[in-house]
Amino acid sequence: MTGRTGREGDGLGSPTDARPGALDVLFDPRSVAVVGASANPEKWGYWLASGALEGRGRRGVHLVNRRGGELRGVPFLPGLDALPEPPEHVVVAVPPPQVRPLVEQGLTAGARCFTVITSGGAGADEERRLAAHVTAAGARLLGPNCMGVVDTTAQLRLSWGEFPAGAVGLVSQSGNLALEIGRLLARSGQGFSRFVSLGNQRDIDAADALDALVAHPPTRVIAAYVEDFRDGRRLARTLAAAHAAGKPVLLLTVGGSAASGRAAASHTGALVSARATVEAVCRDAGALLLDTAGQLVDVALCLLGGARRLSSPGRRVAVVGDSGGQGALAADALTARGLDVPELSPGTAQALAEQLPPGTSCGNPVDLAGAGEADLGSYARVVRTLLAGGDADTVVLTGYFGDYASANPAQTAEECEVARQLATSVGESGCGGLVVHTMARGTPALAVLREHGIPVYERIEEAASALAATARLAAPVPAAEEPSAPPPPPPVRNGDYETTRALLTTYELPFPQAEFAPADPEQVTAAGRRVGFPLALKAMGLAHKTEAGGVVLGIADEAGLRTAFTRMRAGTGAVRYAVEAMVSPSYGVELIVGVRRDPAFGPVVMVGIGGTRAELDADTAVALAPLTVERARALLLSLRHAPLLTGWRGAPPVDLDAAAEAVCAVARAGADHPELAELEVNPLLVHPGGAIALDAHGVLLR
Amino acid sequence: MTGRTGREGDGLGSPTDARPGALDVLFDPRSVAVVGASANPEKWGYWLASGALEGRGRRGVHLVNRRGGELRGVPFLPGLDALPEPPEHVVVAVPPPQVRPLVEQGLTAGARCFTVITSGGAGADEERRLAAHVTAAGARLLGPNCMGVVDTTAQLRLSWGEFPAGAVGLVSQSGNLALEIGRLLARSGQGFSRFVSLGNQRDIDAADALDALVAHPPTRVIAAYVEDFRDGRRLARTLAAAHAAGKPVLLLTVGGSAASGRAAASHTGALVSARATVEAVCRDAGALLLDTAGQLVDVALCLLGGARRLSSPGRRVAVVGDSGGQGALAADALTARGLDVPELSPGTAQALAEQLPPGTSCGNPVDLAGAGEADLGSYARVVRTLLAGGDADTVVLTGYFGDYASANPAQTAEECEVARQLATSVGESGCGGLVVHTMARGTPALAVLREHGIPVYERIEEAASALAATARLAAPVPAAEEPSAPPPPPPVRNGDYETTRALLTTYELPFPQAEFAPADPEQVTAAGRRVGFPLALKAMGLAHKTEAGGVVLGIADEAGLRTAFTRMRAGTGAVRYAVEAMVSPSYGVELIVGVRRDPAFGPVVMVGIGGTRAELDADTAVALAPLTVERARALLLSLRHAPLLTGWRGAPPVDLDAAAEAVCAVARAGADHPELAELEVNPLLVHPGGAIALDAHGVLLR
Repeated sequence: MTGRTGREGDGLGSPTDARPGALDVLFDPRSVAVVGASANPEKWGYWLASGALEGRGRRGVHLVNRRGGELRGVPFLPGLDALPEPPEHVVVAVPPPQVRPLVEQGLTAGARCFTVITSGGAGADEERRLAAHVTAAGARLLGPNCMGVVDTTAQLRLSWGEFPAGAVGLVSQSGNLALEIGRLLARSGQGFSRFVSLGNQRDIDAADALDALVAHPPTRVIAAYVEDFRDGRRLARTLAAAHAAGKPVLLLTVGGSAASGRAAASHTGALVSARATVEAVCRDAGALLLDTAGQLVDVALCLLGGARRLSSPGRRVAVVGDSGGQGALAADALTARGLDVPELSPGTAQALAEQLPPGTSCGNPVDLAGAGEADLGSYARVVRTLLAGGDADTVVLTGYFGDYASANPAQTAEECEVARQLATSVGESGCGGLVVHTMARGTPALAVLREHGIPVYERIEEAASALAATARLAAPVPAAEEPSAPPPPPPVRNGDYETTRALLTTYELPFPQAEFAPADPEQVTAAGRRVGFPLALKAMGLAHKTEAGGVVLGIADEAGLRTAFTRMRAGTGAVRYAVEAMVSPSYGVELIVGVRRDPAFGPVVMVGIGGTRAELDADTAVALAPLTVERARALLLSLRHAPLLTGWRGAPPVDLDAAAEAVCAVARAGADHPELAELEVNPLLVHPGGAIALDAHGVLLR
Repeated sequence: MTGRTGREGDGLGSPTDARPGALDVLFDPRSVAVVGASANPEKWGYWLASGALEGRGRRGVHLVNRRGGELRGVPFLPGLDALPEPPEHVVVAVPPPQVRPLVEQGLTAGARCFTVITSGGAGADEERRLAAHVTAAGARLLGPNCMGVVDTTAQLRLSWGEFPAGAVGLVSQSGNLALEIGRLLARSGQGFSRFVSLGNQRDIDAADALDALVAHPPTRVIAAYVEDFRDGRRLARTLAAAHAAGKPVLLLTVGGSAASGRAAASHTGALVSARATVEAVCRDAGALLLDTAGQLVDVALCLLGGARRLSSPGRRVAVVGDSGGQGALAADALTARGLDVPELSPGTAQALAEQLPPGTSCGNPVDLAGAGEADLGSYARVVRTLLAGGDADTVVLTGYFGDYASANPAQTAEECEVARQLATSVGESGCGGLVVHTMARGTPALAVLREHGIPVYERIEEAASALAATARLAAPVPAAEEPSAPPPPPPVRNGDYETTRALLTTYELPFPQAEFAPADPEQVTAAGRRVGFPLALKAMGLAHKTEAGGVVLGIADEAGLRTAFTRMRAGTGAVRYAVEAMVSPSYGVELIVGVRRDPAFGPVVMVGIGGTRAELDADTAVALAPLTVERARALLLSLRHAPLLTGWRGAPPVDLDAAAEAVCAVARAGADHPELAELEVNPLLVHPGGAIALDAHGVLLR
């Protein structure tokens, strides 16, 4: 339990202060006033008032309604000026025109925090002015247009709906989704430590609220539904801080199906979705991006159960099934989600064989084949043996356990005792966790399992997806990149090849030797002589030069160059040309490297397999830019086609360091040039001797 | 209801007779005898006997136990010879040694069907002898080692466990899985029409049981868990017949995670999994291969609800959410599973806007934003408008509906009435279905929805996955291929290129002009003169010729051929060489086409994108061989890289007819030659002017 003892000073942070505990006045104020209190159970004012009254043992609770009335013997006072003490936290549920005057009244009365439920009114600008007014007075504002705030560890319930108590802290931009998550948690015996409904985030935003959950000891897992990332870089730091505090954030967001809303001016634009960026941020910050409320709850149960073990599990799973069918389906479901269901070591298999009747399958999955039915204790013995064997990081028990007492109530005590033994064997093993999938629901044995923190699922796919997600958390989170802080370089004013090449050259990205010339045969030929043969001729200023006949490779001599130039000028009408040395390594892989600016997260770098099939392969990886060489290497190696880089079918490995450094150069150039909406090198030819950019362009913002 | 009126003749099929209704004696016998009856609730004999007694109003039920006793006033008779009438269906739950004598006794007493629960005993051979004995006497055998049989439409309950009544017919090789499916169905208000536990399938097998479900009118959806496909071709025909009867089969199987167990001797072997074959069979037979019991139940609900509509839905979904967050997450979840959440037409959007308060989002998803809260009738009106608009094939209602009465019991009647209106609007629309996702559980409004066949899910991912699966069913099932019945061709005795090429040439597969020669420079040169230059030289008998230096392309003249031959002989030691005309179309795509023999399904053809990245791309599709040109085209067009074939980035489209005919030729050759474990053409070069095989080999069986 947290509470007053956890406070420091006045418990009140300034708007820019993100230090832990800064929002104590939101979650655990000394006094609360509900403005707009009502005795009508169909009104918000009723729910807020009756929720607030639940905290009367801990704080002063004052109900305000200028028309008078009372609720549970507590009279409604006419205004905030009529309170016997300053209302530290004021909850406002009044019609829009009354909000501003009431906030004024609250500040005068000494309020330090406002939660504004009221929606609508005078619009975003007026809301921003309201927030500025509140924060200028040293107070904080939650909302407007929010569903309130709950802290079950501090008897604070300023919201509508049920919020069962538990260890999950939730920050949400959707009230209904919070209710749904609460319902799903409750069905598994879990609930919320804190809940913050963000509303329009005019002062307190997602990162503020997440910081407060990180700093809150009873909150063991953090969940967030965020639609609007605002300062994405700050959010990324908050996610990383949560991971470092051992409280990984489980994130839901939307937009995975929406078109990016921006015409794709380059491959980078077409290949990088907004969701891929959020996914990359989560991967690198040790958070998990999930898809639905159900998945979020499943993963939360996994993290809450077996804590130490499941928060950093490996991928090896041992399956114990009552029947061959369920065990095999479980093994398939786990494998399909990227987990390993390895063969057991001979020692473990032998230990199982000694305990189980002949005919029991002691492979993985272990098929009890009636052994459990014959002796419930088999379940605990088998799980204990598997945990002790160390062949797997997690044991999944799938099938019937938990339901014996339903068919035969006389078995209730025995089944509960075995459930206790199962939980104990997890505690004793010191490593490894246990997850139970059962066809039972709501039986005493399941209650025992849940009391002991063993996650229980009604469907094997829920267990498998949750385990797979927690396994993703096990990967170490790389150190954050140092921010780039050189003097800002002069902005570029053009996205053409010549300009972009010049820009990237200052970042030490290698290009072939080249000369640029106007549409004049003599100047082009002279450029060719300086570059040397064989060479390539490229027309400048064309959107798709190859398709337009604007590229000729392997020109052997001056005569060839003249012929190629004459044809190309006639075919394309281009006014400027590049004459470039040929680069023809015996083995090479074409990559695309691009940077685009995400509205919330800023510059994002994408690496992908290039070539003519790039869109079909759709093999890309993204990260925030700039990035370290180590992370660039990891990105490259995360591609599905990465084996092409490391020695594919007898080919020599490419120079991965050079490739990673090239990625870093492009990323830093893009990050340093906010005037570029996009920056792209395509192709970047990586080969055993290095990496070289063969084409590049930029897209100016707007 | 089916029953006695549905019978023809004696209702008994011969073992090879798969006609519908042939298993009536299994599901609805005139009399039943339970051998091994018991009054001890911990014994199988108790469950079988008490289950059988539930059918006493419909048939004679006789309980047999040589030690006497009674259950619910029915005395146990000493043996099958002591029955007052012939026992049409005998259920056997006695120790293994007693099974054979009891079956003898049953046949003597006139039994036409045996269900043998008993497991263990004398092994597979003895079980086969028992089955042969039973079928020779004109009777049928279910099991041994099965969990029995249930027909809730005929008051037949010869099993252990609960089997709630409903419209799902289930055939299962796992008893526990059947219990799990039953539990999940019951939670959604559904259950079983018939359940057949297959056990060791010594006579009645999966296809027999499925045939009986297809022929059973109260069975509206068929579910099957099958581990052992036996005669896969017959099963495929059964699946297609079920689809044709409007009762698609929902199939679970295992092995998706097991290594194929066979060393991969070719790309075809490495690229085609056993599961991919089952998936292809299901796709082409109009069945659905699913992964878990939960998924199966979700899809069954979808198919049972809205019947006509959901059994052949399109992919367009309109989403109605109580909140923006839930609506958006639903849209993402649906899109992620391949469904479309299209923009609404202006007419529909306008019709919605006229009904809803200002500020409601009338896009897709529709965000009610409190309109439902203000007036429950909004739900029905919005859904009716969307169904009438015709912009979507299915409406997904997501969020809170179904739970209003929980917070305010006074709303119960109104919420139930709206639930009725929702169901009615589906009926009236004549097209389009409705699926509900709600955070509620077990409320009266949900009961109303379910009574009216509206599927209700607790998680949006369940609804989305189920809708996506049913949409897969909407694709038309192509006609089955005519079986190949020419005189069997002489078997090939070698898998080398020369032999395989000769074989495939008889199937009219084009190859470049070629000559084969021993390792003699004069003969090689003479072959070159006959073929003409430029040409290719290939060493024969090497596993990876290209890597071993056994291929030289583009040899321009005799001198070049001599040089290449000398080097190649020195480098490879090969004793035979092919001299081949060069094929160099300006645009072409390399495919792999292979045939392998699946133990259950026989010859399976695989097409895939070839080239050096084939394993990385893993872009393949399979079908049973032989196959029609239409299906071959469809397979090619189902590849992820299919755009390469149809005019990619300005390239001309390849000759798809020639490509499909080449696939058919390879498929038919493989199907006609069971002595070949594998047959592979790699690459098959397809180009705008045709398709030509550039290499081929076979792998002899064992």
